[in-house]
This record gives sequence, C-alpha cells and structure tokens, in this order.
Amino acid sequence: MEIKVLKNILDVNDQIAEQNRKLLKEKRIMMINVWASPGAGKTTLLLRTAEALKGKTRMAVIEGDVASSIDTVTLVEAGVTAIQINTEGGCHLDAGMISAALQNLPLEELDIIFVENVGNLICPGSFDLGEYKRIIVASTPEGEDKPHKYPLMFTIADACIVNKIDLIPYVNFNIENFTRTVTGMNPDIEMFKISGVNGEGIGEWTEWVTRELGEYRK
Amino acid sequence: MEIKVLKNILDVNDQIAEQNRKLLKEKRIMMINVWASPGAGKTTLLLRTAEALKGKTRMAVIEGDVASSIDTVTLVEAGVTAIQINTEGGCHLDAGMISAALQNLPLEELDIIFVENVGNLICPGSFDLGEYKRIIVASTPEGEDKPHKYPLMFTIADACIVNKIDLIPYVNFNIENFTRTVTGMNPDIEMFKISGVNGEGIGEWTEWVTRELGEYRK
Repeated sequence: MEIKVLKNILDVNDQIAEQNRKLLKEKRIMMINVWASPGAGKTTLLLRTAEALKGKTRMAVIEGDVASSIDTVTLVEAGVTAIQINTEGGCHLDAGMISAALQNLPLEELDIIFVENVGNLICPGSFDLGEYKRIIVASTPEGEDKPHKYPLMFTIADACIVNKIDLIPYVNFNIENFTRTVTGMNPDIEMFKISGVNGEGIGEWTEWVTRELGEYRK
Repeated sequence: MEIKVLKNILDVNDQIAEQNRKLLKEKRIMMINVWASPGAGKTTLLLRTAEALKGKTRMAVIEGDVASSIDTVTLVEAGVTAIQINTEGGCHLDAGMISAALQNLPLEELDIIFVENVGNLICPGSFDLGEYKRIIVASTPEGEDKPHKYPLMFTIADACIVNKIDLIPYVNFNIENFTRTVTGMNPDIEMFKISGVNGEGIGEWTEWVTRELGEYRK
C-alpha cells in the first residue's frame, strides 16, 4: 500500500495548481497572474486591457484582496466579468482559492483570465496558481530600486509593466536604469511602459497578450 | 513540574518582543515601528526626520529588507546610525531579528530607534517587535482606497503619515476622503501630511515624535 504524505502547504498548493493548469488547458483559457505593490495600478491596467480587447477576446478577472470588493465593483460596473476573493488577512492568493473561483466563472465563454493578486511584492511570488504567465506591475512613484529590494518576483516574471509613466516628470525614476536592472536579473523578461490614466502603451501590451494567447493555443 | 509549551511562532515572537520592550525601557529608548507599501517613502521620511532631530535627539534606524542594503547605505552616508536586516525572502521583521539588531547598536548613546519594516501592508502588522509606537506611511499615488483593502495596519497604527503630498495635483487622491476613512477605522490615530521631497510637514511630525519621547520617559 502506498501512503501519500502531502509534505507541506507548498506541496498541496502545487498539486492544486497543476489541476487548475490542466482544467484551463482543456478549456483553452490562458490565465495570467498579475503581481504588484498596493496601489501600483493593477485594476486600472485590467480596465484598460478589457477596453482594448473588447469584441475580440473574452476576458474575466479573479480579484484578490485582503478585504473589500472595491475593485470587483469597479470592473463589473465597467462591464468586465469579475469575481472577488477575500483572503481575510492572508497576504497572497493560493491555488485552492483559484480552483474555487474557476468553479464560479463561465469557463465556456472565456479566452483569458487575469488574476489580480493581493498587493504585495513578496509572498505571492511563492505560490503557483496554475497560471500560464506571470506579470509584475511596477509604478514610477515607487522608485527604481524595487527590483533590488524584492528580487524574487522580478526574477521569475514573464513580463514587467512600468505603469504611471505620465508621472515621470514629477518623480525620481530613471526608466533606463530600471529596465537595465530588471533585464539584468531576468534577461528573457518582456518590458512594457504604460500609463493607465491616459492609455499610453496599452496597445503594445495587449498585442503581446493576444500573441501569447495564440502561442498557448497552438 | 510545569512544562512550558511555546504554542506557535506568534507566541514565541511575543515573548521576545516583551524582552525587547523591557530592554528598551531600561535604556530609556523609544522604538517606533514604521510600516508602508514598497516605495511609499519610508527611507526619505527617516532621512528628513534625522535632519530635523539632529543635535537634539539621538536616533538610529534598523532597516528591514528582503534583500539589498541600499537604504542603510543611504542613511549611513547621510550620517545616520543604521543597521541592516535582510530577511532573505521573509515578508516581515520579527522580534528575534530586532533583538539581534539591538545587540549591535550603541544603546547607551540613543534616544529613539526607528524600525523601517519590510515594504508590505499585510504581514508586518501581525508581528509585535517590542515597539512603543507603530506608524503607517501611505503615499498619494497609491490611491485613497488602501485602508479598505489593507485594514489591519490602519486600524492598529498610532499615527498615519500621508507622504508625497507634492504629487496631489497629478494623481487621483482626495486627502479629505482618505483621512475620513482612516479616522473612521481608528478614531485615536494621529494624522500627518508630509512631502519627503520638499520637507513640508516634517516639523509637525517631529514635534509629535519629540512629545511622545517625553511621554515615554515620564
């Protein structure tokens, strides 16, 4: 008789993440895990992304927050399919939460699911959710030193979006230095520069998303 | 025979925090635990605070980061006594780390120790370090909804500093709404508005620090 021992919380998480990944593959849905600090502009990015993909690609958002459903209300009011997870103190989403959320989404009607993780540059990086791609949103007022201080996520992300480029004239942020640091840690990362407020750069970003969806479905 | 069982990591932490608190009381040093998101401006606040207190109050900084010693280098170059803790992946400081740091600081020559916690609005709120006061730094580009999304720290902090008020003309942040939200959750909290960049509001903040030091030493 073989006895299975689930060694620790990360083992359990990885098993459920693989189940999520398999389910999404069957349904041909690409899932993207979105990481950032609090207030870096994840929700605004996703609103802009939904506008740009409208009528072409069907997307939904799984919204993770410690508390409140402010962002889900914003997304739903804008016509985006969205579902809220409240971690009630927890500092990251895990694969089990995503599994539960997937059961409550209309999977037959979706091409892409964005997971807006809890605003945190540390803990979410250790939890695979079953996603296909991981992106990190950095915002210019946070300063260009963040990759040095929070290296894990910048090292393992597939793409990095620099948001709030409209604020560059008013803050101390050299985008060339920042890009050099990030690509030095992670040479294969895709870099995008956007302004969630005025929509600059959203076209390049959503072209990448669409191209990745094509690759995923090959 | 009484057998002591240390129930969990938080019990152990609380015991060490009490030891830290007792040691600091003996040495008449006030310790302040500083919380914020990544990039909210904790280090700049502490640099400005050191400038304002220079020649009057002797301060040191315990600097917590997942990785790097960028902030400690900045502080030491500016003449501030500072010591770095790298959590190497950990998302918060704990009382044991502070205990070790205290053994490496010249306690006989200090009035105040500021602990710059890891940039994270969630996990550090659960770990008592033995501090006398806890402050949370919020910055205007993060948006005014953060207290709703990350309620614990805003609810248990003794003071809230709104930083980057110089950026208010360029971002979507209504300071009256923000203040109403925070004081609604935490009626006794002290509110300060500052600009780390131009020094606005630092006087009121350091007056409060000096007054609290007097109270602590009574």
